[in-house]
Amino acid sequence: VNRTLVQLLADREQELRTRHGIAFRITGIASRRLGWHADPNGFDATTALSFHSEREGHGFSRAENASKEGGLQPLRGPGVQHWLQAAQADVLFEATSLNVETGQPAIDHIRAAIEHGAHAITANKGPIVHAYRELRDLAAANNKHFLFESTVMDGVPIFSLFDQLPVIHLQGFHGILNSTTNVIISEMENGLTFDESLKKAQSLGIAETDATYDIDGYDAAVKTAALVTVLMDVPIKLEEIEREGIRDLTPYALRNGRRDGWPFKLVCRARRTPTGVQASVRPEKVLITQPMARIAGASSYIYFETDIFPGLAITEENPGLYATAYGMLADFVRAIKSR
Amino acid sequence: VNRTLVQLLADREQELRTRHGIAFRITGIASRRLGWHADPNGFDATTALSFHSEREGHGFSRAENASKEGGLQPLRGPGVQHWLQAAQADVLFEATSLNVETGQPAIDHIRAAIEHGAHAITANKGPIVHAYRELRDLAAANNKHFLFESTVMDGVPIFSLFDQLPVIHLQGFHGILNSTTNVIISEMENGLTFDESLKKAQSLGIAETDATYDIDGYDAAVKTAALVTVLMDVPIKLEEIEREGIRDLTPYALRNGRRDGWPFKLVCRARRTPTGVQASVRPEKVLITQPMARIAGASSYIYFETDIFPGLAITEENPGLYATAYGMLADFVRAIKSR
Repeated sequence: VNRTLVQLLADREQELRTRHGIAFRITGIASRRLGWHADPNGFDATTALSFHSEREGHGFSRAENASKEGGLQPLRGPGVQHWLQAAQADVLFEATSLNVETGQPAIDHIRAAIEHGAHAITANKGPIVHAYRELRDLAAANNKHFLFESTVMDGVPIFSLFDQLPVIHLQGFHGILNSTTNVIISEMENGLTFDESLKKAQSLGIAETDATYDIDGYDAAVKTAALVTVLMDVPIKLEEIEREGIRDLTPYALRNGRRDGWPFKLVCRARRTPTGVQASVRPEKVLITQPMARIAGASSYIYFETDIFPGLAITEENPGLYATAYGMLADFVRAIKSR
Repeated sequence: VNRTLVQLLADREQELRTRHGIAFRITGIASRRLGWHADPNGFDATTALSFHSEREGHGFSRAENASKEGGLQPLRGPGVQHWLQAAQADVLFEATSLNVETGQPAIDHIRAAIEHGAHAITANKGPIVHAYRELRDLAAANNKHFLFESTVMDGVPIFSLFDQLPVIHLQGFHGILNSTTNVIISEMENGLTFDESLKKAQSLGIAETDATYDIDGYDAAVKTAALVTVLMDVPIKLEEIEREGIRDLTPYALRNGRRDGWPFKLVCRARRTPTGVQASVRPEKVLITQPMARIAGASSYIYFETDIFPGLAITEENPGLYATAYGMLADFVRAIKSR
């Protein structure tokens, strides 16, 4: 994600300056493989992109005008705090991969960034499920932003939308939020086996090498938990969400479902109850005339039930290459402009 | 709209105070029939509602704590400026009805409010089509807000959504934005005549007594112009939008279209061209599997094409009674909180 973000930032650099008065430089880059790198004078985009030629990583940005110079020596020091100092970071872009059990190390990174005095922007759902209230309150106490628009629906502004809906009451939602399983289901309906469909999703860049989190419904459940926690203001644990993946769906069942006008979808649901929120992620047969039935491939969909708008639905069709990174860029602008 | 807004404000008064730190009192009420009324100490909600028992009108609000007292004598004075002064207005809720040709008197009311030092919130599309840039710039110069979320899709936050999408490029959109014609089409498909369908839309409170603006496509065209002007940053005149209403659609054609899987819909479209924007409002046959085909009754739909999200669609199903007034309330919170 951060690699794409670097490209997007370079692409929109001039527009960010002229339309939003925001200039920036990339002063820190870190990844599991390369270690911690910082240069307060800024890395140039080419250097940053060569750093970012792997999945795991963070980037830092200083929201100021500055010259851009390279710097390639990894820091010797005790890790994230030292790196934040060396980079003189104003904003952290956190993009480590999801740890379903603990949300780490992302939580520590975000906490360190806010305590250092930087806004923290993450594409990682773990910190929301495991530490939302702590990080939100820490950010507020430090007058910084903790933003995470990229975590659900590839940066479509779901959380920001609800920031624009004061005194509204969200009663529940349902939707399709995991692309890998949606692609696999679509391909199996078309006659591929599970393994062939998974390979196709991987070749499209949608599924990761280890797609277990997707296939077993963890990714969808974590997204559901994030939405419940933030938008319904009910912290929900992952284990409280009824979860069933798509491993037991046979090509036969999938093809018959589609043929009969009741295709299978991996559906996320949440609904307020007198005591809290009931939530589930599981394969459901969806009537073909329902909007969810036509969410194909990497598209996604969510339907919100509120007291003002009984049915407010958002569809993202065929997300572009930049969609997730764009969510981080939009968070960046939000953080800087509302300072 | 303002009558419903008064009810909604009363209903959410405590939540506005506790969650957003906003207190208010209604210090001015004006309508064509009743004239101009002001009381800086505030009208109580019952008084305000009895004032508002007709369609045309404005309300004023002071965003402060205050006692609420009645006051029923119309002002003697030269109109809106005098009224703004007498009401000590902080916020104007403008809800006069649409004047397609000139946007008046709403433009004068909004201009007067901003010059007086109040935020201006309107549910009237006319000022956007006829004076958007002037009013936007006037508001900016006076450090006030000019907001109009209620003008399209009943207060679903469309304009606010794009405020959350920095450096994105909107290439075009299509959708169904007029409820009256959508209800009429649905009812005629079900076997009613045009006149019976119109009466039904009127009895549902969707169509006005004079539904000409709806039926001839003016309402949809004005909404299309508002979206093009604000979101695509291209001021477009109404006469530049190709416009065809639903008068020529026969029950026979509508029933056959639905039966054949290509139902008619009154579709709004806009698309960037090398020289500007091309826009139209006209009946189109829509393939039954397309999302627009299932937008029934008072529901609405819009599909945005952007460089980041190739297809970002928003559906509003069965808008609630408060949906339009809620758009004004949400604008109120936006205006006060971002001061």
